[in-house]
Amino acid sequence: MTPPRTPDQLHRFGYLGPRGTFTQMALDAWDAAEGREHLPFGSVDAALSALRAGDIDAAMVPIENSVEGGVSATLDSLATGEPLVVIGEVLVPITFVLCARPGMPLADVRTVGTHSHAWAQVRGWMGRHLPDAAYVPTLSTAASAAALAQPGDVMFDAGVCAPVAARNEGLEVLAEDIGDNASAVTRFVLVARPGTLPEPTGADKTTVVLFQRDDHAGGLLELLEQFAVRGVNMTRLESRPTGAAMGSYCFSIDFEGHVLDARVGETLMGLRRVCAEVRFLGSYPRADGGRPDARPGTADEDFDRARAWLDDLRA
Amino acid sequence: MTPPRTPDQLHRFGYLGPRGTFTQMALDAWDAAEGREHLPFGSVDAALSALRAGDIDAAMVPIENSVEGGVSATLDSLATGEPLVVIGEVLVPITFVLCARPGMPLADVRTVGTHSHAWAQVRGWMGRHLPDAAYVPTLSTAASAAALAQPGDVMFDAGVCAPVAARNEGLEVLAEDIGDNASAVTRFVLVARPGTLPEPTGADKTTVVLFQRDDHAGGLLELLEQFAVRGVNMTRLESRPTGAAMGSYCFSIDFEGHVLDARVGETLMGLRRVCAEVRFLGSYPRADGGRPDARPGTADEDFDRARAWLDDLRA
Amino acid sequence: MTPPRTPDQLHRFGYLGPRGTFTQMALDAWDAAEGREHLPFGSVDAALSALRAGDIDAAMVPIENSVEGGVSATLDSLATGEPLVVIGEVLVPITFVLCARPGMPLADVRTVGTHSHAWAQVRGWMGRHLPDAAYVPTLSTAASAAALAQPGDVMFDAGVCAPVAARNEGLEVLAEDIGDNASAVTRFVLVARPGTLPEPTGADKTTVVLFQRDDHAGGLLELLEQFAVRGVNMTRLESRPTGAAMGSYCFSIDFEGHVLDARVGETLMGLRRVCAEVRFLGSYPRADGGRPDARPGTADEDFDRARAWLDDLRA
Amino acid sequence: MTPPRTPDQLHRFGYLGPRGTFTQMALDAWDAAEGREHLPFGSVDAALSALRAGDIDAAMVPIENSVEGGVSATLDSLATGEPLVVIGEVLVPITFVLCARPGMPLADVRTVGTHSHAWAQVRGWMGRHLPDAAYVPTLSTAASAAALAQPGDVMFDAGVCAPVAARNEGLEVLAEDIGDNASAVTRFVLVARPGTLPEPTGADKTTVVLFQRDDHAGGLLELLEQFAVRGVNMTRLESRPTGAAMGSYCFSIDFEGHVLDARVGETLMGLRRVCAEVRFLGSYPRADGGRPDARPGTADEDFDRARAWLDDLRA
Repeated sequence: MTPPRTPDQLHRFGYLGPRGTFTQMALDAWDAAEGREHLPFGSVDAALSALRAGDIDAAMVPIENSVEGGVSATLDSLATGEPLVVIGEVLVPITFVLCARPGMPLADVRTVGTHSHAWAQVRGWMGRHLPDAAYVPTLSTAASAAALAQPGDVMFDAGVCAPVAARNEGLEVLAEDIGDNASAVTRFVLVARPGTLPEPTGADKTTVVLFQRDDHAGGLLELLEQFAVRGVNMTRLESRPTGAAMGSYCFSIDFEGHVLDARVGETLMGLRRVCAEVRFLGSYPRADGGRPDARPGTADEDFDRARAWLDDLRA
Repeated sequence: MTPPRTPDQLHRFGYLGPRGTFTQMALDAWDAAEGREHLPFGSVDAALSALRAGDIDAAMVPIENSVEGGVSATLDSLATGEPLVVIGEVLVPITFVLCARPGMPLADVRTVGTHSHAWAQVRGWMGRHLPDAAYVPTLSTAASAAALAQPGDVMFDAGVCAPVAARNEGLEVLAEDIGDNASAVTRFVLVARPGTLPEPTGADKTTVVLFQRDDHAGGLLELLEQFAVRGVNMTRLESRPTGAAMGSYCFSIDFEGHVLDARVGETLMGLRRVCAEVRFLGSYPRADGGRPDARPGTADEDFDRARAWLDDLRA
Repeated sequence: MTPPRTPDQLHRFGYLGPRGTFTQMALDAWDAAEGREHLPFGSVDAALSALRAGDIDAAMVPIENSVEGGVSATLDSLATGEPLVVIGEVLVPITFVLCARPGMPLADVRTVGTHSHAWAQVRGWMGRHLPDAAYVPTLSTAASAAALAQPGDVMFDAGVCAPVAARNEGLEVLAEDIGDNASAVTRFVLVARPGTLPEPTGADKTTVVLFQRDDHAGGLLELLEQFAVRGVNMTRLESRPTGAAMGSYCFSIDFEGHVLDARVGETLMGLRRVCAEVRFLGSYPRADGGRPDARPGTADEDFDRARAWLDDLRA
Repeated sequence: MTPPRTPDQLHRFGYLGPRGTFTQMALDAWDAAEGREHLPFGSVDAALSALRAGDIDAAMVPIENSVEGGVSATLDSLATGEPLVVIGEVLVPITFVLCARPGMPLADVRTVGTHSHAWAQVRGWMGRHLPDAAYVPTLSTAASAAALAQPGDVMFDAGVCAPVAARNEGLEVLAEDIGDNASAVTRFVLVARPGTLPEPTGADKTTVVLFQRDDHAGGLLELLEQFAVRGVNMTRLESRPTGAAMGSYCFSIDFEGHVLDARVGETLMGLRRVCAEVRFLGSYPRADGGRPDARPGTADEDFDRARAWLDDLRA
């Protein structure tokens, strides 16, 4: 086994590109990536494949949006294939601008290009201000700005993107803050190859994917009881199809605590026993610094005391 | 209150268009829509808005794909706004073809247009046969075929769509059955305004959206216990962000049985008591005809016997 | 079916005798029995047999002591045979005196007679004051006083009984308040034939005996979930052997609420479904007047609102 | 700490006397006690006090009867005071005879002496054959035989006891097998001071007393979930009053497995965390040799594999 690589040993950072996306903003907010190499990828799959192949040392990818929900490409790519682990998370507030080539009046906009997730988040604004505008999908929000910035014909009159993308491309901003949900946030995770386990900070999260042994009724209930009985709180639960058949699901779950915590360790062992497979996707510091609010009897000291008591009984 | 409209009174059927999509295939498979008016809409939102406005009587929309998971646009549009109900479901096997203008050899394909969900389901095939092809997003799979069929410039060399769309548009099929998962199925639901409650058939499903009273740990566990204690099996559970804040979720759930079944009624009342809101999205016959496998003590006759016994005690 | 008899129609009250027992004190504390006929019986079985036979209209019997626990004879006699129901309860503080024939000094007491349950409750005092006294079992505490009061030989020098028994029999009290637990209380129940259902008062209790369908692991857990999911609190749980085999138990349970309460009704139906048998032993006002502290979503109004909502969905 | 005493080091065995009781039969059935000193005690309390004081090395006492239920004196004496542990159990089939002084005809029996627990188990036979016989309580079944065997006056005409007691005392057996339940069994436990932990045999039991942290609704449910989530089956659950107040209970529980088993260890730690106190009363071989029927995922190997997997994640 190779010695664990500490975050200091991460040199090449991939991200879901192109430049000007919210994902780049997330990577820019990651201190340990400052001054290192940043490489854009065309898709989450491409970034994670490069990571698995050793071409990069870490990848920043979106995993969850407070309005649109889980990012399927990331969830599914982490859930299968060569193991990867999350080593950190970044929360980025999401604000959209409507931008166009200089000189285009808002009233003349007939077509709008952007990524489908962004479009879903500005539908309200569009309904009120450009009810007749047609939607043209692009590969990313930044791609809509880039297309407008290129000379020649373009498929749409205006784009929806992050303020930084409009600025980068020298476009005119027709309207700011056009997201329907002012408090929209996207959560990004920094992914690495196994071998890097961040130290527990007391305010950590752990991510797993659970595959049930069989699809019996009450199966999910049984999994959740493994958390409840040790007082471990979940912060995200997504069901994702395994692809095997309609109705066959696995569960992607984030929960409070670190794999080195006693209560998390016992919970993981319990899940391991009752699941067909538990895929461990890492323990890492929470971006919001929130500490778990342990029910009586479920703090780590309670686990330690119980262990000491048992050792004594067995002696 | 207007008298309930029976399915016979449904005359105008909307669907997620354009022509040539899998959704149209689902509507074609719905016997009661034969010979009625079929109207394509550009988005799930547009179809459901027209339904809410009374412009159409029912809308066929996708809700769940066995490979890609829940269809967020449908889930979210049903979960908010004026109430709508599901009155039926259709399962459509998903098969994709690669098509192009007549004369284009497979080896010359450099760019491929299709809907992002379809692209996700043919990535494996593309990696093996067209590893260097660039992806161009379109609004639907059928839209990629339609674009190729129009004269003049087009943004891509080939499209990925349903066989029927390639045929409709007179395109050449370069490769058949290119989906990575041969058993991929999409589930469509026929949605109507409340007032239409299909009769129980003994093989039914009910759909609800549950909003928790507060986001306390163990909240989901409490909801699932309401099902378990009455022996009601879930067939789908999706968490969807409410948009209020990162980590604030509602749950979209399908389960076995009909609102008129005793055990379903008691389950719904239990959920209503412990949730902030229960949004009832209809009871309808299952497309697969599967009957629930009731645990001892949870069949409808058990509920009836228990009710008779209680009435006797109270007399 | 005979018309229900109201408590006013109860004329003949049996009790676990003889005169001078705590059971008589309980019956004396029952207002509705004032001025009616009071008949002592030699055992709980004898009293309940007379009640079943119609020789008496009600019987006051002990069911639970705060120090000694459940009274097996009562629990078992109610759990089998012709149905009977509890229609009320009385709490009696338990205080014991040591009594003897006039002239007997405490220091000369060598043998002490009393009922085995009373002996268990004064062991501490005896250990400190009469460590060498031998114990002689009697059929009741009052019987020990009665024996001392009769002329001629007696099997013991002193008795342990209620203050009233010593007074009734003209005995000398050698020591007062000799119980080891100053707050000892015994709970008595007034039992009648079915047909008498006390009105709900808002502060009621219900008693049942539950027989499991099979003795599978987790069987009791399943029963308790029927209570938990409707927010119904248990106030007593006793396991009693069914006699069928070592390890075969039924459960005698008291819980808050009245059979006419919505949440109690649904709980009883749930138990009826999952149990081999539910024996209903009555709903009656609590002696302590305590009202249930319903969790959010489990008050009767919550059940009513949920029912109205369901009726609306089904309309 | 003194080195653990193995059963071979037990020399003086106390039991609930007098000679001729079922408890003596249980001690006779305990191979390791053969040839050692056997000392009868007048009560369970007396035997366990002598054990705590070091006057004896072990004590055989009854704990549970298949007809009459738990033996309160034993349960309560083990639950409080200086710790003791169970190191073995014996099952004794219970058969009663009716005996008298030679020459007494059955038809002349007017009074019957025996222990109250025995009387409870022959009530049916008495109702059929001696419906008018009065009951006289004695300290034990053997004491009734001993009283009849002594010269001079006696308080009753016949006794109910074990066949061996009638034989020992030279009495005449008027009727055999008079127990109402032909398969009645009493379970006895051999109790010792802590320090003796029998080896796991694969067919073991563990006994604990659980004191809840507070008497909240659902408290017992929470305790049972600690067992359920590790697949540990209970074989006995008794609630016993703590004496603190009416309705304040602790739980005396036997369950399958040995404290050295992984799943039992984790269960005990879980109970320790959520309880105010867990009193460990020993792990010992089951008298019936029954092995636990572990649910999938709850066998000791499952625990071992889960531990190895976790250790690997943490490395």
